[in-house]
Amino acid sequence: MNRFTIPLLVSLLCAACAAQSRDATPRLWRVYENALKDAKYVDLTHTITPSIPVWSGFGASTFGPSVDPKTGVPYGWDKDGFEATRYVLATDQLGTQLDPPAHWNPDYPGIDELPPTFAVRPLVVISIVDQVTEDPGYSLSVQDVQAWEATHGQVPEGSVVFVRSGWSQDWPDPALSTKRPFPGVTLAALKFLHEQRHILFHGHEPLDTDDTPTLEGEAWLLRNGYTQAEGVANLDQAPETGALVAIGFAKFQGGVGGYARFIAICPPDWKYGVTVGQVPESPLARESKPLHWDAKLGMRVRSRRSRGWPSAPAQH
Amino acid sequence: MNRFTIPLLVSLLCAACAAQSRDATPRLWRVYENALKDAKYVDLTHTITPSIPVWSGFGASTFGPSVDPKTGVPYGWDKDGFEATRYVLATDQLGTQLDPPAHWNPDYPGIDELPPTFAVRPLVVISIVDQVTEDPGYSLSVQDVQAWEATHGQVPEGSVVFVRSGWSQDWPDPALSTKRPFPGVTLAALKFLHEQRHILFHGHEPLDTDDTPTLEGEAWLLRNGYTQAEGVANLDQAPETGALVAIGFAKFQGGVGGYARFIAICPPDWKYGVTVGQVPESPLARESKPLHWDAKLGMRVRSRRSRGWPSAPAQH
Repeated sequence: MNRFTIPLLVSLLCAACAAQSRDATPRLWRVYENALKDAKYVDLTHTITPSIPVWSGFGASTFGPSVDPKTGVPYGWDKDGFEATRYVLATDQLGTQLDPPAHWNPDYPGIDELPPTFAVRPLVVISIVDQVTEDPGYSLSVQDVQAWEATHGQVPEGSVVFVRSGWSQDWPDPALSTKRPFPGVTLAALKFLHEQRHILFHGHEPLDTDDTPTLEGEAWLLRNGYTQAEGVANLDQAPETGALVAIGFAKFQGGVGGYARFIAICPPDWKYGVTVGQVPESPLARESKPLHWDAKLGMRVRSRRSRGWPSAPAQH
Repeated sequence: MNRFTIPLLVSLLCAACAAQSRDATPRLWRVYENALKDAKYVDLTHTITPSIPVWSGFGASTFGPSVDPKTGVPYGWDKDGFEATRYVLATDQLGTQLDPPAHWNPDYPGIDELPPTFAVRPLVVISIVDQVTEDPGYSLSVQDVQAWEATHGQVPEGSVVFVRSGWSQDWPDPALSTKRPFPGVTLAALKFLHEQRHILFHGHEPLDTDDTPTLEGEAWLLRNGYTQAEGVANLDQAPETGALVAIGFAKFQGGVGGYARFIAICPPDWKYGVTVGQVPESPLARESKPLHWDAKLGMRVRSRRSRGWPSAPAQH
């Protein structure tokens, strides 16, 4: 060791830094390689079928095969080489949704007017499962948010906060749409999350924010320019802290609800989810049974029974 | 300087490392704070209206207000406090799409069966704008991919590759759906991207992959378990390299196409796009005109004219 040791070390460190900055891989691609590729991905989205729970005030939606408008005959893989789907959707308040404020207030943006910054955000999951076990009509309180913060730190500005209540465990039982009481979110908690924590939006498992006569939570949110997610799924498989959420939704002009997609991007050591490369993606895996149109269920399935719901709820 | 200098330096470095690992902010949240929050977000998605270009073999789609099934009367903000939307969609091959292989082959996954790892990926944009200026029917070749690679390095495994052709500049002119020739992608380029580069999927601006009699590119892709994106928008505002893409799509059971959402997440110094915090998000900005139902256009708009298309194409 001599007086050249430190300059040598410094120059070695500088060389290492320079090598990193000379790395031709662009920064966001390195973020993908180093932090997103080995994450665990969990879908927080219900699959939409003609028989999922929906408010009776909207009535039923139906699926059908796309038809040739000249003949009225459906396109088929055998004779045409392809199929497509015709949807008659009674409402955009269907399945896992993103409600823009225009759903309740025409002075604020519709679904197509949300900025593209609704894309990827920190995800906070606050569980009220224990409280709901005691009281099926329990609503998330400010104290519940503060209890989460006591464990995990402050809810980050710009984050998405999903309320895990366990309500969707019975999904897609059609009885869920009229089940009362159901777990909610208090107006005070919504105001705390938006006005004190400045979150992007909150979401919940049920199809309504609360069970008050005026739907006071949803009314306050949407009439004041906030968005919210409804019908969020699989929150038992997302961590309370430390995940991101990818946000997607169909972009219909003047639309006031959404056929949304939420995917939790969880840490690599998380116990649920799949990692890039863990399942075939491109090409995808060949299925053991072909899709076919099931007239009774009113949709394409791979077996006589729809996935996840053993009877034929479309006929109920 | 003495023989303790290096141990001191090492311990200082270790202390710095330990401080970083003690940082209570979870790793993926730090990724958001350090790399995603200041990115520029660009929407690569067309807004779906009843009059956007679509293959004539599917016919028209219509929007309407959701109605009370008991009375048939539409819900309205004034009398009911909310509105919702009823969609009659002739096809799932509409607007900006993600085609799962089941569109052409029932043995492979439908839109609801894609893994949740279809969420965020490196985005490659290869321009053939110059070639299309010379030849409106030009198709992306292997050489075009190799020319991109000579400048930017190898197309990353698992990436999304969008082909910028300029075709969508006239969107939503309904004449686009029958315009021939249109820019395509050669089967050789698709095979190169999938078999040599192992990309997740490619996408293009037109509504078909190529103009061959057998639609050979789409046929090869979908019959062999690959996905593809169609009707991709705004590729002139995305960088050729270094961006990510957020991927979302409505999740209809047995669906064979998609009402998709693609958002480019671009470097902070990119000239297009908006950054988190740059535009009001929560609450969103109040609009200068209220949404209202335009019977002639068949959708909700904020003025008598729809955005982006000055005449009333729904009536054409």
